Order: sequence, then structure tokens, then C-alpha cells
Amino acid sequence: MDQAAETRIRQGYAKQGFMALIGAEMTALSEGACEIHLPSDQKVKQQHGLFHGGVIAALADTAAGFAAYSVMEDGRQPLTIEFKINYLAPGLGDALVAKAQVLRAGRSIQHLSAEVIAIDGSEETLVATALLTMKSTSAVEEI
Amino acid sequence: MDQAAETRIRQGYAKQGFMALIGAEMTALSEGACEIHLPSDQKVKQQHGLFHGGVIAALADTAAGFAAYSVMEDGRQPLTIEFKINYLAPGLGDALVAKAQVLRAGRSIQHLSAEVIAIDGSEETLVATALLTMKSTSAVEEI
Amino acid sequence: MDQAAETRIRQGYAKQGFMALIGAEMTALSEGACEIHLPSDQKVKQQHGLFHGGVIAALADTAAGFAAYSVMEDGRQPLTIEFKINYLAPGLGDALVAKAQVLRAGRSIQHLSAEVIAIDGSEETLVATALLTMKSTSAVEEI
Amino acid sequence: MDQAAETRIRQGYAKQGFMALIGAEMTALSEGACEIHLPSDQKVKQQHGLFHGGVIAALADTAAGFAAYSVMEDGRQPLTIEFKINYLAPGLGDALVAKAQVLRAGRSIQHLSAEVIAIDGSEETLVATALLTMKSTSAVEEI
Repeated sequence: MDQAAETRIRQGYAKQGFMALIGAEMTALSEGACEIHLPSDQKVKQQHGLFHGGVIAALADTAAGFAAYSVMEDGRQPLTIEFKINYLAPGLGDALVAKAQVLRAGRSIQHLSAEVIAIDGSEETLVATALLTMKSTSAVEEI
Repeated sequence: MDQAAETRIRQGYAKQGFMALIGAEMTALSEGACEIHLPSDQKVKQQHGLFHGGVIAALADTAAGFAAYSVMEDGRQPLTIEFKINYLAPGLGDALVAKAQVLRAGRSIQHLSAEVIAIDGSEETLVATALLTMKSTSAVEEI
Repeated sequence: MDQAAETRIRQGYAKQGFMALIGAEMTALSEGACEIHLPSDQKVKQQHGLFHGGVIAALADTAAGFAAYSVMEDGRQPLTIEFKINYLAPGLGDALVAKAQVLRAGRSIQHLSAEVIAIDGSEETLVATALLTMKSTSAVEEI
Repeated sequence: MDQAAETRIRQGYAKQGFMALIGAEMTALSEGACEIHLPSDQKVKQQHGLFHGGVIAALADTAAGFAAYSVMEDGRQPLTIEFKINYLAPGLGDALVAKAQVLRAGRSIQHLSAEVIAIDGSEETLVATALLTMKSTSAVEEI
């Protein structure tokens, strides 16, 4: 991934209204991998004070989307075709970190995995694990 | 579902910081079914002006969680074990509606399906379809 | 689906060594839909006399593959990208029937759902429900 | 896992009519992990000479089931609640090996992952990756 690609990807992330809304930051980006960090806040919780499962899923999906983006040619963009996520432990702690990586990048289809980890002081707990399928498109319309 | 149960469920929903954050409302609730409505807004979008895939997933998960809640005995609460979602069309329009229903409610495990529909004027498009597994717990700890 | 397409699809099914091995028959085929029937036999069971979960999944996958095949242009073939399946009830009875249908057929990607039903005398039980993603290819190599 | 547990698990495997039918052997078993090996044969193929996707899924499910079994108390048995599988490469080669491991084993629910690898001479290719959810039951009825 050259500098131009990295800039393009980081600008794409900066335009995501939803990531800004929840306060999530992209903390790492490399060829085929991306990491997103979300500090704890009442606004990203469900009614029992746990991180909302939908937020956990959204972080996994977003980290995977930008990991897929990092291996695409210029002019192509990722679109999530589908994903699945298993919740292994309650989402409790100071922050969540989602780490996604490309498992296999085909010409049109990319398979990815993502893990979401809860950080509580010095302790880390694997909260969720996901498998995702992305498609590279030249425009949103051509799904 | 009696009046007390409905009140309990609606109060649970009202305490979800995340649903309030994105502006989502529970618009229907009955035994084994729940519907959640989200008006369009820049803050729930990704960088191309589409509803964020993570938001779509979160609506499906939340509608399913409350549909599962509606068939549980008093004192039990739902916890998402896992879910999977297929994105059939781009999330474009004035609003999203997520509709979830219980497929099978066992003693401890509930299987659900959910659909997320984009509403654009008088047109409706099926945007995503999901399968979800919930577990009834008496406390968050006992996963 | 014209006669030539139907013949092509049915010949494809007939060449599946695995479907022959387990004794599964294609019992219905129409544009966007396919049905496969499997009589009960010890050889398709697990150790407790239930239909093997892997067999149930294989039927769902195969029915979906041929449903996808039925909406493709001549010269294209389906390849399963991924699927997910929820088991709703134990696989008990005289036979299984898998019914798949296309949810959305894009240019390159097809989304499908499938249900697997156990038939026991005159009783039918929904045993499993699945979501599947297929890709149309002109040759196996071009995934 | 003591000797009695290992014997119980291996006897369970030996009674699976379906694993015998396709010629699959359990080649490794330890606490929380299981490996199943399947030699290539026309009878486990689809119409293009590739390992059938349903067979690949069945191996992943079965390896995961016995991995889950290996961490259960005496008298408990695993039941697949759901699984999902991504196909990363065509199933070509002399044999398949499915390797499953427990990600998290709760009191009633077990989360597992599985990989299916194609072996072609000295080359190994990751063909599929799966996430699975099992439930421990004392009898098949109590799902």
C-alpha cells in the first residue's frame, strides 16, 4: 500500500458519519489489515451497561471493510456482501478494539476475519469473532 | 405478552443508549415479533451516503433481541450468541425498518430471523436478511 | 428457464457423485428454485440415529446451488462463496426435503435462502434454515 | 480428557454412519481439538471433480462436534446449534483435513472454529474456514 492509497483510505474513513458518531478511531492500517478503537461511553451501550452487540458488529464490519480496501486497486471500493459474528464474552471494559485481516483476496471477492477485543485496564478479553465477505466494486450500483 | 411484560420490554429498550444515539424507535412489539424504525441521517451513514452496514446489522440484532425478550419468562433476558446477515441491496432511502420474528423458541435457545427494509417515498427495498441465535439468561454473567 | 437450460442443470445434478452416494434426488426445479429429497437411511445419520447435520447442510447447499444455476446465463456456473445454517429441531423422520430459492440475483453474486424439512408420516418439521451466497463463474478457476 | 472420555468419544465417532459412508477418519483428538481426514474419491465430489461443498461443511461440523464433546462432562453430548462457513479456494487434491478447536466453552454453549485444508502432494491449501456454535445436552430432546 503506497502513501496515496493510505491517504485515500484514511480519507474514506474520516467521511464515515457513523464512526464519528460513536467516537471510533482507526488506530492501525497496513496492507490487508486494519484496527479500529472505540472508547467506552454510555451512548454505545445496551441497557445493562455492556457494549451494544450492534456496535461490536459494526466495528468488525468497518475494520474488515478498510482491510479489504487496502488490497484493492485504485478506483475500486469494498462493499460488504455478508458477515457473521459469534459473541464469546460480554462486552465490558474501557474500550473495544476491532482487528480485521484479509484471509483471501480474489479478483472480485475478499474473505476476511475480524476479532473484537475488550480492554479493561491491562486485561484483554476476546469478545467476538467474525467472518466477512466483501466485494470490490467500481461504483456502489454494480452489486 | 401481558401489559407488565410489554412495559418491562419497552423500558429495556428505552435504556439502550445506542438506540437513542442513532435515533431508532421501536414501532411495533408483539409476542415473538418486534419492529424498529430509523430515519435517515448523515450520522448513520458510511462515506458514500448509504446507511452504514454496521447500523443495518445493529437494527436487525436489536429487533431480534426484543422479539426474543417478548417470549421469555419474567426474570429472563436475551443475549445474542451469534448472528449472520446478508446484504441484498444498498441502504438508500428516507428510513430503515428492521422486522424480527422468533423462528423457534426453545427452553434456553431462541432462533430468529430479521429483515431490514429501506423505505424511499412509497418504495420499499429489502436491504438485508439475517439469522440470529439468542440465549435466555437470568443474569449477564451466566453465558 | 428453457428446456435446454433445464436439461443442462439436471445433467449437472446427475454427475454429482456425492448426491448419488447419499441417495438424494432432485424433485423440483424452476426458475430460481430447487428442491432435493433424501430418504432416511443409517448411512446419512450420526451416532444417535438423527440425520447428520453435515448432510442437512449439504442438501441446503446443493439445492441452493441448483436454484442459483437456474437463473444464470448459459456458460456460467455457481460456486458457493459461503453459507450459514441454523438447526431448529433434531433431524428425525422418513425423509428430508431441502427447498432453496433465490433472494436476489445480481450480475455476479446471488443470495439465496434454503429450508430443510423433516417428513415423518404426514408430519412436517422445519429442521434447519440457511442463508447462502453464490458466485457465477465461467470456470472454476476464476474465484 | 482421560482415557475413558477418549474411548467414549472415539466410540461415538465410530457409530456415525455418515462418516463411514464417505470414508472419513478421525486422525487426532485432544482436549478441545479434533482432526478428521478424508481421502479423495469420486463419491465425495460435485460435478466438476471438486470436493463437494457439503462434504467440506460436514467435515468441519463433525470435527467441531467432537472437539466440543472432548470438553464436556460425562453424560453430556454436543448438538450443533448453527454454523457458517466461507469457501476460500476450490476443494482440489488427494485429501481433505478438517481441524476444529474450541474457542470458548461455556456451561451450556460452546463456540468453535474449524479450518478445512486440501492436501495435494506436499502442498496444503486452506479451502474453508468456519465458525460453529454447539450446545451440550443430556439428551437429544432437550434442545
